[in-house]
Amino acid sequence: MKPTHIEHLGIAVKSLEEAIPYYENMLGLTCYSIEEVADQKVKTAFFKVGQTKIELLEATSPDSPIAKYLEKNPHGGVHHVAYAVEGLQAALDEVASKGVQLIDRQPRKGAEGLNIAFLHPKSTFGVLTELCEHP
Amino acid sequence: MKPTHIEHLGIAVKSLEEAIPYYENMLGLTCYSIEEVADQKVKTAFFKVGQTKIELLEATSPDSPIAKYLEKNPHGGVHHVAYAVEGLQAALDEVASKGVQLIDRQPRKGAEGLNIAFLHPKSTFGVLTELCEHP
Repeated sequence: MKPTHIEHLGIAVKSLEEAIPYYENMLGLTCYSIEEVADQKVKTAFFKVGQTKIELLEATSPDSPIAKYLEKNPHGGVHHVAYAVEGLQAALDEVASKGVQLIDRQPRKGAEGLNIAFLHPKSTFGVLTELCEHP
Repeated sequence: MKPTHIEHLGIAVKSLEEAIPYYENMLGLTCYSIEEVADQKVKTAFFKVGQTKIELLEATSPDSPIAKYLEKNPHGGVHHVAYAVEGLQAALDEVASKGVQLIDRQPRKGAEGLNIAFLHPKSTFGVLTELCEHP
């Protein structure tokens, strides 16, 4: 696998409404899209900085992965790191064959129409890691 | 402030010796430098992916900020996010005037000779945030 760049950082926040003004007014980024990903029980807000997107994540249900993250990290924080790869299925097969535990054995659809898959943080030194590619 | 890209992600690990092979053999990145930052009581290992560096951080002392992070997050995780800016002092003054709490009111020297300063996570929705510029 040869990741080309950090596609996005997934950042858990309690409230998009509270966090978006910080990212816009303090960090000087522009929110270009708000999208609900029903499958993941999250509402997302996107910003771009260089090659990388900042994806703010708000839970839409108490059993959302983001709600669980916020129970442990009540102020929010970096929830996951997503690497852009070419050949996502091959990358998954490769790391699985080397012993990495996968959350998704096959790609599924994520925000913005990307094909995505998660590696388990037990195999990635504590960082929930996503691999993604443009379809 | 207009950050140009994510300069690096600071990732806390218990052991560089254990984590470096994961980043090299699984994620396909190349460790190009190992550096001790005595001031921060850390040893760092650097990888590059697109515009962004992955900076693995191992504590060199029990009172290192990384040792404290690992007490709360024993498996490791994303310790900080660093945005590249032009005009670091002006950026710090700007966000301070807008109410952001600063850890560093003035730039200081970080790894790789960059000028760096940290914003307090209380003001940044839980994400320890670094601003940095090339001198």
